[in-house]
Amino acid sequence: MIRATGSLPVNVRFLIEGEEESGGEHIEAFVASGDPRLRADAAIICDTEMFAPELPTICVGLRGIIYGELHVQGAAQDLHSGVYGGAAPNPIMAIAEILTALKDRDGRIHIPGFLDRVTPPDAREVEAWSSLPFNEEDYREKEMKVPALTGEPGFSVFDRTWARPTCEVHGIRGGFTGEGAKTVIPARAVAKLSFRLVPDQRPDEAVAQIASAIADATPKGVTAEWKTLHAGAPSSVDPNNVYVEKAADAMTEIFGNKTVYIRSGGSIPIAGVFKDHLGIPSVMMGFGLPDDNLHSPNEKLFLPNFHRGIDAVVRYLQLLGSDAA
Amino acid sequence: MIRATGSLPVNVRFLIEGEEESGGEHIEAFVASGDPRLRADAAIICDTEMFAPELPTICVGLRGIIYGELHVQGAAQDLHSGVYGGAAPNPIMAIAEILTALKDRDGRIHIPGFLDRVTPPDAREVEAWSSLPFNEEDYREKEMKVPALTGEPGFSVFDRTWARPTCEVHGIRGGFTGEGAKTVIPARAVAKLSFRLVPDQRPDEAVAQIASAIADATPKGVTAEWKTLHAGAPSSVDPNNVYVEKAADAMTEIFGNKTVYIRSGGSIPIAGVFKDHLGIPSVMMGFGLPDDNLHSPNEKLFLPNFHRGIDAVVRYLQLLGSDAA
Repeated sequence: MIRATGSLPVNVRFLIEGEEESGGEHIEAFVASGDPRLRADAAIICDTEMFAPELPTICVGLRGIIYGELHVQGAAQDLHSGVYGGAAPNPIMAIAEILTALKDRDGRIHIPGFLDRVTPPDAREVEAWSSLPFNEEDYREKEMKVPALTGEPGFSVFDRTWARPTCEVHGIRGGFTGEGAKTVIPARAVAKLSFRLVPDQRPDEAVAQIASAIADATPKGVTAEWKTLHAGAPSSVDPNNVYVEKAADAMTEIFGNKTVYIRSGGSIPIAGVFKDHLGIPSVMMGFGLPDDNLHSPNEKLFLPNFHRGIDAVVRYLQLLGSDAA
Repeated sequence: MIRATGSLPVNVRFLIEGEEESGGEHIEAFVASGDPRLRADAAIICDTEMFAPELPTICVGLRGIIYGELHVQGAAQDLHSGVYGGAAPNPIMAIAEILTALKDRDGRIHIPGFLDRVTPPDAREVEAWSSLPFNEEDYREKEMKVPALTGEPGFSVFDRTWARPTCEVHGIRGGFTGEGAKTVIPARAVAKLSFRLVPDQRPDEAVAQIASAIADATPKGVTAEWKTLHAGAPSSVDPNNVYVEKAADAMTEIFGNKTVYIRSGGSIPIAGVFKDHLGIPSVMMGFGLPDDNLHSPNEKLFLPNFHRGIDAVVRYLQLLGSDAA
């Protein structure tokens, strides 16, 4: 824009976050520092998805997250399952017992107090979701490619992925996982777990609830310890905010379809940090697509969306500037 | 003996097994082949433990084993837990659900039919066990170094480790186990499991029971497959067999204490193979010690037992030869 017109219609500041996937603790400290370079009316974040190809989308809600490790210790050293099997505690089995106590086979979370603050989406938002172009069978078969969807009975896919918390295991370290057979009962094992949070759950309170539920679920013969690696609060943006409305207008113009509002089940903790420390909304204009294989092998970005994303942001700045003029 | 006396009092053949820890399938095929070089009256195997230091011990029962992998597949590719968490099947969680269905928190195995053929040890054997020098609290604290022993209620430690079958998980591969955080829901995961078998369980039948129980316990959204890596039957030796009696006499002489008879919770499949194909007993004179850290870091062999083991085998051959003379 500067090269084409000699100026920008509004002031633009860049804040670059290089730690987002590993907790972002330094950017939070910087935003909290009150540095005058952080003064702004709104933030724009391009890290979300379009609901469908060609369908411009603004994200107005993000789940929070607690990510951590469950460390379980049994014997002081690895034990032979022939000699001790039948009397020895098994830390991997203990993790299985703890996991199945935290979440049942139907996907219901059983952490005392954890669901108390969960606020259901309001009727208008649910109504808007129902008009999104969504075919659950296509989503299962073509996008996720799974034999069946899972999750809490009585909740829609949008509820389960956007408006309900999760309890997920990402990996278990410990014991023997190479080729062939080894009959070791490991002395210790570590599970990586995450819990997505939704409004109005509070990370600190949820961590305490999780740690307490783990303690209650720990079988005899082992000790278990929860270590939080990072945590971020859920956040939401008022879709009637002027900065969001102008962004929706810009995207509608560039993509030629009316912009829809969705939530994301993912977590972008900086949005909550901007709201808490700077009091500004985060406008989440995203250009990803559902088949981008996010965080998975063969991750991609659809290049036309890269270019249209640039156009949409340019148009957004123009609309903001013409309004201010 | 040949260097000292010019001859051996009995014929000795060596059969060397280099695959014992990975299934031993070739030695079983060789033993089954009927090769005339395999002709023998008894086998001697030195791969078991002494019950306590200075206490000569002969093992008269071994558990069998089924070792294999539980392969669980969810989506076709890894999924992001933010986007799909709440609707996506999680293969590691599915493994946890299957494991806790196969064995409960108290250590009871719930595989239909699996325990039907389990024969309790006879009263004389149980009586002999009760006179072994054993302190359960020392075993827990000094040998195993665990906060508490585990296992089926109502069964002694000897029962649980020698005369009851097990269901053990040795490791789970899949997902993310490195340093830090990664919010992946893995497409697939593999658990290494073993099941120790006791008389009169049959490996083929037990494999079918395990596979069927896994199928019943598999949650929706994933497929699960059991792959047996190796299997061996439980075996027992009559302690009144002359080859066992002479071995006990030889060990009593060399160690200066009366030889005791125990079982082992481990598996030495070749003992069952000798019995089935050659019709000969396996005399298990072992020289390991309980603190040898078998199959574990810092594994050792107490060197005086190495030398006394040689002496005991020499004395055994002499006793066998003088008897034959």
